[in-house]
Amino acid sequence: MTETLGLALMGTGRMAHVYGPKIAAHPGLRLEMVFNPRLASAEAAATQYGGRPSDDLDAVLADPAVEAVVIATPTNTHVDYVLRAAEAGKPIYCEKPLDQTLERVDVALAALERHPVPFMLGFNRRFDPENAALQAAVHAGEIGEVNFLMSTSREPAPPPMDYVRASGGYFVDGVIHDIDLMCWIAGERPVTVYAAGSCMVEPAIGAEGDWDTAMTTLTMPSGALVHINNCRRCAYGFDQRVEAFGAKGMVQTRNHRDDNLVRWTAAATEARQPLKHFFLERYDQSFYNALDAFHAAVSGGAAPTPSAADGRAALAIALACAQSAREGRPVAPAY
Amino acid sequence: MTETLGLALMGTGRMAHVYGPKIAAHPGLRLEMVFNPRLASAEAAATQYGGRPSDDLDAVLADPAVEAVVIATPTNTHVDYVLRAAEAGKPIYCEKPLDQTLERVDVALAALERHPVPFMLGFNRRFDPENAALQAAVHAGEIGEVNFLMSTSREPAPPPMDYVRASGGYFVDGVIHDIDLMCWIAGERPVTVYAAGSCMVEPAIGAEGDWDTAMTTLTMPSGALVHINNCRRCAYGFDQRVEAFGAKGMVQTRNHRDDNLVRWTAAATEARQPLKHFFLERYDQSFYNALDAFHAAVSGGAAPTPSAADGRAALAIALACAQSAREGRPVAPAY
Amino acid sequence: MTETLGLALMGTGRMAHVYGPKIAAHPGLRLEMVFNPRLASAEAAATQYGGRPSDDLDAVLADPAVEAVVIATPTNTHVDYVLRAAEAGKPIYCEKPLDQTLERVDVALAALERHPVPFMLGFNRRFDPENAALQAAVHAGEIGEVNFLMSTSREPAPPPMDYVRASGGYFVDGVIHDIDLMCWIAGERPVTVYAAGSCMVEPAIGAEGDWDTAMTTLTMPSGALVHINNCRRCAYGFDQRVEAFGAKGMVQTRNHRDDNLVRWTAAATEARQPLKHFFLERYDQSFYNALDAFHAAVSGGAAPTPSAADGRAALAIALACAQSAREGRPVAPAY
Amino acid sequence: MTETLGLALMGTGRMAHVYGPKIAAHPGLRLEMVFNPRLASAEAAATQYGGRPSDDLDAVLADPAVEAVVIATPTNTHVDYVLRAAEAGKPIYCEKPLDQTLERVDVALAALERHPVPFMLGFNRRFDPENAALQAAVHAGEIGEVNFLMSTSREPAPPPMDYVRASGGYFVDGVIHDIDLMCWIAGERPVTVYAAGSCMVEPAIGAEGDWDTAMTTLTMPSGALVHINNCRRCAYGFDQRVEAFGAKGMVQTRNHRDDNLVRWTAAATEARQPLKHFFLERYDQSFYNALDAFHAAVSGGAAPTPSAADGRAALAIALACAQSAREGRPVAPAY
Repeated sequence: MTETLGLALMGTGRMAHVYGPKIAAHPGLRLEMVFNPRLASAEAAATQYGGRPSDDLDAVLADPAVEAVVIATPTNTHVDYVLRAAEAGKPIYCEKPLDQTLERVDVALAALERHPVPFMLGFNRRFDPENAALQAAVHAGEIGEVNFLMSTSREPAPPPMDYVRASGGYFVDGVIHDIDLMCWIAGERPVTVYAAGSCMVEPAIGAEGDWDTAMTTLTMPSGALVHINNCRRCAYGFDQRVEAFGAKGMVQTRNHRDDNLVRWTAAATEARQPLKHFFLERYDQSFYNALDAFHAAVSGGAAPTPSAADGRAALAIALACAQSAREGRPVAPAY
Repeated sequence: MTETLGLALMGTGRMAHVYGPKIAAHPGLRLEMVFNPRLASAEAAATQYGGRPSDDLDAVLADPAVEAVVIATPTNTHVDYVLRAAEAGKPIYCEKPLDQTLERVDVALAALERHPVPFMLGFNRRFDPENAALQAAVHAGEIGEVNFLMSTSREPAPPPMDYVRASGGYFVDGVIHDIDLMCWIAGERPVTVYAAGSCMVEPAIGAEGDWDTAMTTLTMPSGALVHINNCRRCAYGFDQRVEAFGAKGMVQTRNHRDDNLVRWTAAATEARQPLKHFFLERYDQSFYNALDAFHAAVSGGAAPTPSAADGRAALAIALACAQSAREGRPVAPAY
Repeated sequence: MTETLGLALMGTGRMAHVYGPKIAAHPGLRLEMVFNPRLASAEAAATQYGGRPSDDLDAVLADPAVEAVVIATPTNTHVDYVLRAAEAGKPIYCEKPLDQTLERVDVALAALERHPVPFMLGFNRRFDPENAALQAAVHAGEIGEVNFLMSTSREPAPPPMDYVRASGGYFVDGVIHDIDLMCWIAGERPVTVYAAGSCMVEPAIGAEGDWDTAMTTLTMPSGALVHINNCRRCAYGFDQRVEAFGAKGMVQTRNHRDDNLVRWTAAATEARQPLKHFFLERYDQSFYNALDAFHAAVSGGAAPTPSAADGRAALAIALACAQSAREGRPVAPAY
Repeated sequence: MTETLGLALMGTGRMAHVYGPKIAAHPGLRLEMVFNPRLASAEAAATQYGGRPSDDLDAVLADPAVEAVVIATPTNTHVDYVLRAAEAGKPIYCEKPLDQTLERVDVALAALERHPVPFMLGFNRRFDPENAALQAAVHAGEIGEVNFLMSTSREPAPPPMDYVRASGGYFVDGVIHDIDLMCWIAGERPVTVYAAGSCMVEPAIGAEGDWDTAMTTLTMPSGALVHINNCRRCAYGFDQRVEAFGAKGMVQTRNHRDDNLVRWTAAATEARQPLKHFFLERYDQSFYNALDAFHAAVSGGAAPTPSAADGRAALAIALACAQSAREGRPVAPAY
């Protein structure tokens, strides 16, 4: 391994444009190649972030300067690239979710067992400084044994219907972030889940058999109870809060905003600006931190987390939530 | 009716000592009689709060100076006194719950149909200024259509086991407060409930088949989803918070405390004192306000609320919650 | 002394209407007489709050049922009534200020020396629960030796010009409240004062040679430094905050408001309602508490505070502040 | 000019170690040389941050790759290096203060007039994101005409006595930061100042004729009044708050801290961690931002601010404050 870690960025879509600038800015990372089956797209991205463009997957994976890959392609191709990169012996950072079905996730897990390269799944919210501080406080015993975990995730506005249709449903696309975060903080996974879904924001979402408003309960082996609420519309912005309550106290995260000023006017006092940004802005730092963790693990020879198995578990829970909301009964996840 | 409303206080136990001083302090109320089957107890309370002591129920209910009754006797006698007072044509303020079984509540409801005296149930939390302000803001449309309601109710410490055994269980004894409050704020009652219970605080509670930690989901006809979390132990005091989230925004209540000072020390900044009091202190004003509402309704000829039917509904929901926690499945309340 | 303390309310103007309802509501006080040189005014007030109306000062002071007096007459008559009540041997509660000149205040002090009746000055802000809690925290040593005290007092809007002209100037009329509060919290009085005044709100106030915006520094014997800022206009309401900083930490009071709800909308998050009320509403409880303290002191035989000497000191400081603002130099108060 | 701006870092002391890593991390800056009269020190710093070490000032200033200088030498040598760099035609970023005397500052100003190179003074607090957001809000008219500005600056602990002795006194060393910030936010400079100083923290500071506790009032030409309070000890950390109050409202900055978690324990609720860091940590980002502003101005051909004249004004005000505290009277700064 050279002094910096040489990366190939697989894909040039929305998430690739999240990772591109962060790879370029990270002193320990070196963007070697940008891959897209359409060469023009690869060229455009390479011009922006550096690296050599390529539409030849074999060449990318065979290049000795490519020491690891960052997979930011469409979700339904994640597993394909994981298989190829694993066979090529390249460490993998893969954007979440690994796939929308447990079957395909299991294919990837089997491949990673055959080719045990370092693998890390992009559950970036674990790397948000607020969430990380809360998780550390809980694991340090600051609140004693955990009784309740609460996660609030409300988005400024519903996504386009094309996105919704391809998303795998609200639980697999959105709630899964909270599921992974809650399990990570709790240090355990639920024995049963119960979810209730409504369609109160965008009727077209309901017409697809999906939900835009959901409330989820996870029952943990320790007896801890987890509450998650999600809504695809939030008048005041992107509301992201976590609360952990235990035998000795409680810790809470607070929302981020553009500036930290407190405003007093004739209309309102102690007012803060609306939380106007969405996940790209709110969790910008967490994506950088996630790459940093991947770099540190690969450079140091440690196994990065979240692992592929973490991704499988979160998906199994999310699918169980969707089934629960559909069937109106608690469901045990298929771990 | 004279200028003030003459009351008989039925019972001299813990709740009677909550109402006694508030009746004495209320300029529109007049404590005429204090009733207890044991005369000595009635005499002691009458010395404290005023009024004539009596152990003769017939005499109390026949006394023309007694214009209404406040029932603060043990729960399992509530319905008996409601029946007698209704027959005597006296307006009734009855401490919650009306009873622990739907059967007995239905007996009271039938009696109130035969003898339609004004009746008000002591769900005092509706009369808490914070909760009332939130309910008013929601009903004024401040947050638009309601998507989520959240209630957090955590008690400083578990009650004595004697209390637990007689309580009817955590859902009927404790969660029922949140149930009534959420339904009142929502303006609707759930079609199904799902509850998960744990015993994480006091093993003796679990040994009784009860829970000390509970998380409840109510699914409302409008699609609104309600979350309630309850715990019988809270390191930092009596945590009582409500959050209402809707299409146009969110309103939240904040906890009360002894003083409002913000403290900055070497140990912590912006610290507030623990919420050290329990319901008698936290909701002290709400009991006074409840009596005030009863007085205004009776004096003005209006039907007071919460009604006996409100009490029945809350009990039906609480029993459904307990059944849900027991059976691990969502349950439709028996309205 | 009977079971309750019989009062004569002197005056029927704005401040009398503050005290009237509080006397009526206080279980230990009994409004015996309402005095005004114009009988019709006394009668109107007596109808509202109880007590016998009178325009005969001699009769009021001679009435054995009148056990103490509450002086709420125009400021320039305070000393006259103090002299008469002191001669009659009646305990005195006198609205602030005792007078606008040190000469007349000294006349009252001399009379109280000759006729040592219990005397209390209505610096009601000492009796505000927030301020009282802060003072208690400071005196309990919670922040160690005091280094800084800060008082912010900003009024919703300037008073009518008639009020301004008769007020004695901003320092004697408004800042004096903060002066007394700071000295009371500090437990000491300044050796010098420095004040800077501006007229930024209402030019007519400046035309009278008065200020509507002022910043005051008090240098205390201990070395503690006190900052006071006052403004006759505040867009968001009646801003009243105190901060005490010392060797071991800091305590701060927070503003009051109608309800305690936290609001999140598309326009603002964590917003609280404007502080729309002025001193009658903000300090309503403090007037009641002040009467309560007067009652407790007189009933218990203790000397009530704030004393007449406190009033003299605050006035001396306020006059020194006005002189400082006028002359642009620090001034030593004439204690 | 090449693509990046080539810098010589003058000095290798405490402040040089603040700027070194930020220059290394800034994509638009290039550390060409590190100068120290003692070569070994220059070599050590160059090893850490890059660039060529040198003890030859003439060579540094003659090197064409050195396109600008960052002066981070001891304060009493600042003017010497400014003179030399100006003569050499190099743009200058100079750590504050320019000097501790107006005489020497005037020497530098005259040199900059003869050799008009871009010059920027390191008043880094202007570049703090919080302060910058507040200044922008004020200048955007968010609070209307400014009536009051308040600055609170309290340090965790007093500096070593060696530092105090060489510092020029608390007003010139510490308060000058608040002075510059307040003038920058106000957009004007005071006509008079009044300062009161105490020694309440460290008697040795008082023995030097200096103060460790100070309260300053600036009277602005517009009538706006400015309050500044400074203390060399703060139990809960590095307290840095600004408040701006005007005709239409108020804006306030809040303190920074390590994490943003809100903690609820048996000891305190809503507690935040102490503000344990000092200026290197609290204002770390602002130093980077200051370099960024210098780079942008020099690259874009604009005059950077704060200018040398800003530094002269702040010093004149600080010296007037010290004189005011010493003489106990308001003083007009010698602009």
